[in-house]
Amino acid sequence: MLTVNQALGLVLENTPQKIQHLRKKLLDAQSFTLAERVVTDRDYPPFPRATMDGYALRLEDLEKENKFNLIGEIFAGDNWTQPEKIKTNSTVKIMTGAPVPECFDVVIKKEDSNNKENIVTIQSNKFKKWMNIARQGEDAEQGKLLGQQGTFIDDSFLTIAASLGYSDLYVLAPPLVSLISTGNEILPVGAPVLSHQIRESNSVTIRAMLKKFNAKIHKSWLIPDNPQMLAEKISECMNSDICIITGGVSAGEADFIPSTLKSLGVQEIFHKVMIRPGKPIWFGRKDDALFFGLPGNPVSARITFKIFVEPCIRKLLRLPAQKNYFFPILKTRTKMHDFEEYFRVKIINQDNQSYLQEIESNGSGDFINSLESEGIAIHPADKPELPQNSQTQFLFW
Amino acid sequence: MLTVNQALGLVLENTPQKIQHLRKKLLDAQSFTLAERVVTDRDYPPFPRATMDGYALRLEDLEKENKFNLIGEIFAGDNWTQPEKIKTNSTVKIMTGAPVPECFDVVIKKEDSNNKENIVTIQSNKFKKWMNIARQGEDAEQGKLLGQQGTFIDDSFLTIAASLGYSDLYVLAPPLVSLISTGNEILPVGAPVLSHQIRESNSVTIRAMLKKFNAKIHKSWLIPDNPQMLAEKISECMNSDICIITGGVSAGEADFIPSTLKSLGVQEIFHKVMIRPGKPIWFGRKDDALFFGLPGNPVSARITFKIFVEPCIRKLLRLPAQKNYFFPILKTRTKMHDFEEYFRVKIINQDNQSYLQEIESNGSGDFINSLESEGIAIHPADKPELPQNSQTQFLFW
Repeated sequence: MLTVNQALGLVLENTPQKIQHLRKKLLDAQSFTLAERVVTDRDYPPFPRATMDGYALRLEDLEKENKFNLIGEIFAGDNWTQPEKIKTNSTVKIMTGAPVPECFDVVIKKEDSNNKENIVTIQSNKFKKWMNIARQGEDAEQGKLLGQQGTFIDDSFLTIAASLGYSDLYVLAPPLVSLISTGNEILPVGAPVLSHQIRESNSVTIRAMLKKFNAKIHKSWLIPDNPQMLAEKISECMNSDICIITGGVSAGEADFIPSTLKSLGVQEIFHKVMIRPGKPIWFGRKDDALFFGLPGNPVSARITFKIFVEPCIRKLLRLPAQKNYFFPILKTRTKMHDFEEYFRVKIINQDNQSYLQEIESNGSGDFINSLESEGIAIHPADKPELPQNSQTQFLFW
Repeated sequence: MLTVNQALGLVLENTPQKIQHLRKKLLDAQSFTLAERVVTDRDYPPFPRATMDGYALRLEDLEKENKFNLIGEIFAGDNWTQPEKIKTNSTVKIMTGAPVPECFDVVIKKEDSNNKENIVTIQSNKFKKWMNIARQGEDAEQGKLLGQQGTFIDDSFLTIAASLGYSDLYVLAPPLVSLISTGNEILPVGAPVLSHQIRESNSVTIRAMLKKFNAKIHKSWLIPDNPQMLAEKISECMNSDICIITGGVSAGEADFIPSTLKSLGVQEIFHKVMIRPGKPIWFGRKDDALFFGLPGNPVSARITFKIFVEPCIRKLLRLPAQKNYFFPILKTRTKMHDFEEYFRVKIINQDNQSYLQEIESNGSGDFINSLESEGIAIHPADKPELPQNSQTQFLFW
């Protein structure tokens, strides 16, 4: 059986990258992936900018003199025309955000000055060149690459794009995803259930998790354990980028997914992985369409989505892998098997330190307890024990 | 001057809580706040559920015998009618997810059995009561409260709501927010800029940050430093829950926001806080409308939004405060003032440990470098130094 890393490697190897572009209004581009190069159109700051209200002066003058002739004032947004020749000991009053004229190289804040009849006295002797001036180009020079194909468009990037004057952005077309939930025992959310039946939740969970990538739902169906009906519906998903099927993926007598997929010409790339929960996961491909068969129970479906499907979507969208973090684990954790185990955790703060705390649960069918969880932590395959306080890898949901 | 905690306390004290409800389709309810009680409609699991494919038996029989008469088979979704009397040494074949009939209390997995002409031989002697059965009600009994007014509707909650049969949810009406950017030097994103002008980005950043609360934008304007125009537009925002104004909030000669707000009858609750960046922040109230004047530079605006406005929105929506985490800081950090300082950081992983690394920047006007940041860390007011490796409080953006 494949390890998690081997299986994930095969998923990524078989994932093509999106090339179709869309053009989006800046604010509608949030959570898409950039498809163009974004480059500074000019220096940033674009002009030497006063960072305080005060007086602009020449350091050279200031080193000799503390009284200055006021020759003008500049507000933010003003286009002050500098006289051809500036006399020694001249100053201009300047507001935060205003451009500092070329001839000046210091701004003394107004609290350190005194203006009497247009004679400004500087009352501080702590000054140095460029004080209280954000120099042109110090944050980024013109032509600096700030975004490219594969940059995720988050709040920070939107600030940049607006500042650089992008009112639209080219983004990668979102992945087209089909969702098929299977199981005779499963009914749609709104229908009345009998005591031996349960309601469909996997497609809801997965749609919610897909939202952060702006993925587009192509088809979404709930289908009983019937090979003909499954084949008919799955064959309509051949143009999806990804088809995610939950349930029916194990080796039981009602587990028709692997055989149905094969009958439709989908090549099996792997079936079963050394992961807990989620061992029965199936992955295959037909041309550029990828097929995931995830176990049906809600916790397994969610964790295998996170570990295998989400990285696939990130690769499709040319995004880097999800960042993971390390936190010490609150209590020693042991396991008796050689599978990689993913367990739901919350993070608790004690004495100015954050710890991972495992969510108590009755196993992988217990979706109720997911409510408390912030994400999942990894118990590596080869470690029987994660000792108390040991740094443990963690992924936010 | 107020400390950050004093100021935040005043913000929260003055924030009313939303009471208007909306009804949303389940999937459209994501990122809203629940406005109703969500209670388990029945036990979960709703029936004793087989967690393996195998044979259901009576422990009592199994302790004496290893051959059983096959009297039926049950697939997930089947409503098997239990005969009135079950003979000793009877078994039914059962699939994962199927209801285990009342009379049985053990499931032996099929790998540990052998079925020959309807006589099933159990080949394992490791068994105990309720083995491979998820018992009715073990995850949650009927009537358990799983969500209430103030529960944030995230992926985990949507799974629960679907499983419990909620096809719609009552949610709190989202906050109505107005955004006013000010400054003579500022032009709308699409307009051509001259060298002394810059483009408006604060409203873009704030709208992007508001998205996670599904906030509704009431008005959004860019207004020059003109008291009449400011007064006219601000007076149209009196029905917003929150009005966020960026720029013009300090004590400079073009800083008209505090006086304009007062002239409109908005009561000043505080002006200036011991925070860096963001000291000039202004906060006031008129009836139930709250007014924030944030400093105009993009980094200060974003940080003061995060520290003061976001907690206000959370209170409006009855949500708990944003969770913060502690990570060790990679390098010793010193400060020379007694303000609380918020600095942009990224998290880096080294030798299986996560550390906070400060983003190098040219001060609070340097928004370009925010690109790399994952959030902000807190340098408390009273600590001149955060020593290397000391646990430091961190907030994701």
